[in-house]
Amino acid sequence: MEMITLVIYDITDDDLRLRVAKFLKLMGLKRVQKSAFAGPLTSSKRADCIAGLKRLVRDAKANIQLYPLTEASFRQRVVIGVEMDYDEEESSSIIT
Amino acid sequence: MEMITLVIYDITDDDLRLRVAKFLKLMGLKRVQKSAFAGPLTSSKRADCIAGLKRLVRDAKANIQLYPLTEASFRQRVVIGVEMDYDEEESSSIIT
Repeated sequence: MEMITLVIYDITDDDLRLRVAKFLKLMGLKRVQKSAFAGPLTSSKRADCIAGLKRLVRDAKANIQLYPLTEASFRQRVVIGVEMDYDEEESSSIIT
Repeated sequence: MEMITLVIYDITDDDLRLRVAKFLKLMGLKRVQKSAFAGPLTSSKRADCIAGLKRLVRDAKANIQLYPLTEASFRQRVVIGVEMDYDEEESSSIIT
């Protein structure tokens, strides 16, 4: 059964942070904030995601948290403020 | 009924970011990541929290998202990596 999984991360190293973001995109998740992705994952895909993130992080100074959400939780989320243009930010940091 | 509410934020302005963090602490939430707090809120407290955050943010470049979580979602969260010392980071930025 698919559940929306919210992934939030706090990663100091720029390179690792980019690699984590790319990996989460590959897993089919969408960026919902600078350091947050969300999207539906089956429990086996979620396990793959956790394993992949552990491999990426190893002993780096990073903290990543995954929350499986019910449909209701995701529907009831409240967003305050502006929608930021995260993809532009990311591509510019790839170019530099 | 109390539900654990996860609040994640992306705020560029240092001063506003600190004020949002202080406000979330006042609401009884605990820091779970540099830019994420979580804790139980009744629906009326959650409404107060949303109203307070909107007042703080106004037209600033900020994005704040609140997710009401079920007990199961919170229990099933997965944390990868190290526990970072966020409070020390915050107090040092208050001192400087």
